[in-house]
Amino acid sequence: MTDPGLLIVVSGPSGAGKGTICDALRKTFSNIYYSISMTTRSPRTGEINGVNYYFTNDDNFKKLLTQDAFLEYAKVYDHYYGTPREYVYTLLNEGKHVMLEIDIQGAMQVKKTYPKGIFMYIVPPSKAVLEHRLRGRHTDTDEVIAARLSRARTELDWIDKYDYLIVNDNLPAAIDKAASIIRAEECRVTRNAECIAHTKKLYK
Amino acid sequence: MTDPGLLIVVSGPSGAGKGTICDALRKTFSNIYYSISMTTRSPRTGEINGVNYYFTNDDNFKKLLTQDAFLEYAKVYDHYYGTPREYVYTLLNEGKHVMLEIDIQGAMQVKKTYPKGIFMYIVPPSKAVLEHRLRGRHTDTDEVIAARLSRARTELDWIDKYDYLIVNDNLPAAIDKAASIIRAEECRVTRNAECIAHTKKLYK
Repeated sequence: MTDPGLLIVVSGPSGAGKGTICDALRKTFSNIYYSISMTTRSPRTGEINGVNYYFTNDDNFKKLLTQDAFLEYAKVYDHYYGTPREYVYTLLNEGKHVMLEIDIQGAMQVKKTYPKGIFMYIVPPSKAVLEHRLRGRHTDTDEVIAARLSRARTELDWIDKYDYLIVNDNLPAAIDKAASIIRAEECRVTRNAECIAHTKKLYK
Repeated sequence: MTDPGLLIVVSGPSGAGKGTICDALRKTFSNIYYSISMTTRSPRTGEINGVNYYFTNDDNFKKLLTQDAFLEYAKVYDHYYGTPREYVYTLLNEGKHVMLEIDIQGAMQVKKTYPKGIFMYIVPPSKAVLEHRLRGRHTDTDEVIAARLSRARTELDWIDKYDYLIVNDNLPAAIDKAASIIRAEECRVTRNAECIAHTKKLYK
């Protein structure tokens, strides 16, 4: 028996630096796995089934929905996206950490079914900094940027539902904070029942 | 207004490495302060009032006890030792962290009055390792070592009352874990009401 791994849920506005931070965490912790989402949209060029996504059809996704097979799911435009519960639970039970980079609605679904998860919210220090980053990417129109900024503001009201807040004003410091959160949670007494039982035996 | 600092309570058996870890934390975090205990015992050579301890007499200590002036206290043989509440609270309210290296009984008193504290338990990986360390210090008799080992074993039953367990099988790793716990707790949403309010303003 080993203690279960950590389910690490990361949210934050587009432009917060979530992707960069999550990739850095994966390099730091060899036992962190990304969960693989299932989707009903078609694969794009280069996307591989079982690596980028599990690709499936509408009928199968709906069948799985009735079986409560997703930790969280959403319908975006005409397509379903979901996090298969079994894959995540299998990894956790093996003592591995699983990382989910999802939006607030998804995170709140996960929190309901798996409250032991670690919920981190990453946010740039100000609207001005977020806008500067979004403009620097040269990928969004002015309208899209305006919508993202407005959404970032309203989403701040959800921070209270998260465990940890990382204000990303400095990327290395933000990565260090996220890594510290994982290392700290690994030391939580409530997550170490097996480790404690083992240690007690070594004191007999 | 700033968010209050962290009250960091560190316990563990004699020989666990608490002192070394706490000193390393103080070097890493410029905003960690040790609390200064008050005692009714006489100063030893070189001990300075207000630095090593606050020295006082029995009558004054008892008067302070009736005023609930201590976060925790104990009578050891004929002398009282206590952690003055006001000094600790003043530092915390200034946003500074305060570290207390105290035994389980003291920690449980602190937990009752200040449950927001961070309670860490540090323990060597096994009785054999602890014994090896105690013998290596060449300060204790066989009887004292036997008593310490026996006490270390029974004290393991209190781990459940702590938030974090650090199994100190490697000193740099143990220091890194303790530092991570502090960095993580600094990011806790529930400890950052002021920071969140400030961030919300910067998104208006």
